[in-house]
Amino acid sequence: MIKTNARNELIDITFGVAAEIEKTDVKDGICTVFCPHTTGAITINENADPDVMSDIIMKMNKMIPHREGYSHMEGNSDAHIKSSLFGNSKQIIVKNGKLQLGTWQGIYFCEFDGPRNRNVWVSVTG
Amino acid sequence: MIKTNARNELIDITFGVAAEIEKTDVKDGICTVFCPHTTGAITINENADPDVMSDIIMKMNKMIPHREGYSHMEGNSDAHIKSSLFGNSKQIIVKNGKLQLGTWQGIYFCEFDGPRNRNVWVSVTG
Amino acid sequence: MIKTNARNELIDITFGVAAEIEKTDVKDGICTVFCPHTTGAITINENADPDVMSDIIMKMNKMIPHREGYSHMEGNSDAHIKSSLFGNSKQIIVKNGKLQLGTWQGIYFCEFDGPRNRNVWVSVTG
Repeated sequence: MIKTNARNELIDITFGVAAEIEKTDVKDGICTVFCPHTTGAITINENADPDVMSDIIMKMNKMIPHREGYSHMEGNSDAHIKSSLFGNSKQIIVKNGKLQLGTWQGIYFCEFDGPRNRNVWVSVTG
Repeated sequence: MIKTNARNELIDITFGVAAEIEKTDVKDGICTVFCPHTTGAITINENADPDVMSDIIMKMNKMIPHREGYSHMEGNSDAHIKSSLFGNSKQIIVKNGKLQLGTWQGIYFCEFDGPRNRNVWVSVTG
Repeated sequence: MIKTNARNELIDITFGVAAEIEKTDVKDGICTVFCPHTTGAITINENADPDVMSDIIMKMNKMIPHREGYSHMEGNSDAHIKSSLFGNSKQIIVKNGKLQLGTWQGIYFCEFDGPRNRNVWVSVTG
């Protein structure tokens, strides 16, 4: 379970995903990281400078403002649109039980309608 | 085969995908839903209020208008761009022969250059 | 290894991915094409008219300009944002050792901060 702290937030979940892989017997295969929420997403991006995360959030809010004449009464259509654009799952190659990520890559849970309590599902197939 | 009815349309294909899984012997694995068209896509988003779908379409048309000085003579570059942004395939975890989706999630075929007859390919690996 | 030639470029890597599949013993399964860079991506789109690629690049540069008050000192936040929107991996169904792509589909490496030397990782699970 992930507790998000803001309406828009990108949270590094790389270590949590790696821990799930270690619980399985699969050494070589594909790891699927799946967000079961329709106002969240999963992305893979830079894990070094936190400014990259704040720039992503800033630009997405500019492109897709919170209010813009949407019909959906819940008032979070912007979050649903961002969810579809970022995608609700990502796949990572697993070798010898280890996630194969580039040097600067981390796996992020994307919150677009927080703060909320969120879940992420991890599955590894060999 | 899916028959789309408008230039832009999001069509819930969740039941069709679930039916394909039941035809296989795979109980636990990953389901890949793949759009073989370059002006369509697959997305996972809210299955409750249809206003979410119309808001997604409205905003995407505002961000990426049909005509905007594109070179491609066929006149549907906007649809190709939307296809790359939404992504032409999605992956869903399968457990005990059942798609694992969040409470409010449905799987949608995204038509960006209809109306047309479209295909969706479903594969399950265990 | 892929050598890109411009800041923004979409390079058809379909033949290289197909060659990687032929090296494996997997006949039926899923191929994952993974970009280990945070300013690149993988997309599947039209392989016929190169104008589609230049239209995609033109529109993305208009929507997400190179400079727009970003904080990230490296000056390439636009590339990180495009990477998350296009997605850093794609999945393709494999049957009888062959990639299952639609008639007009090719697999593209997306360069958003080139020119650089880039890698693409390919994995096939059955």
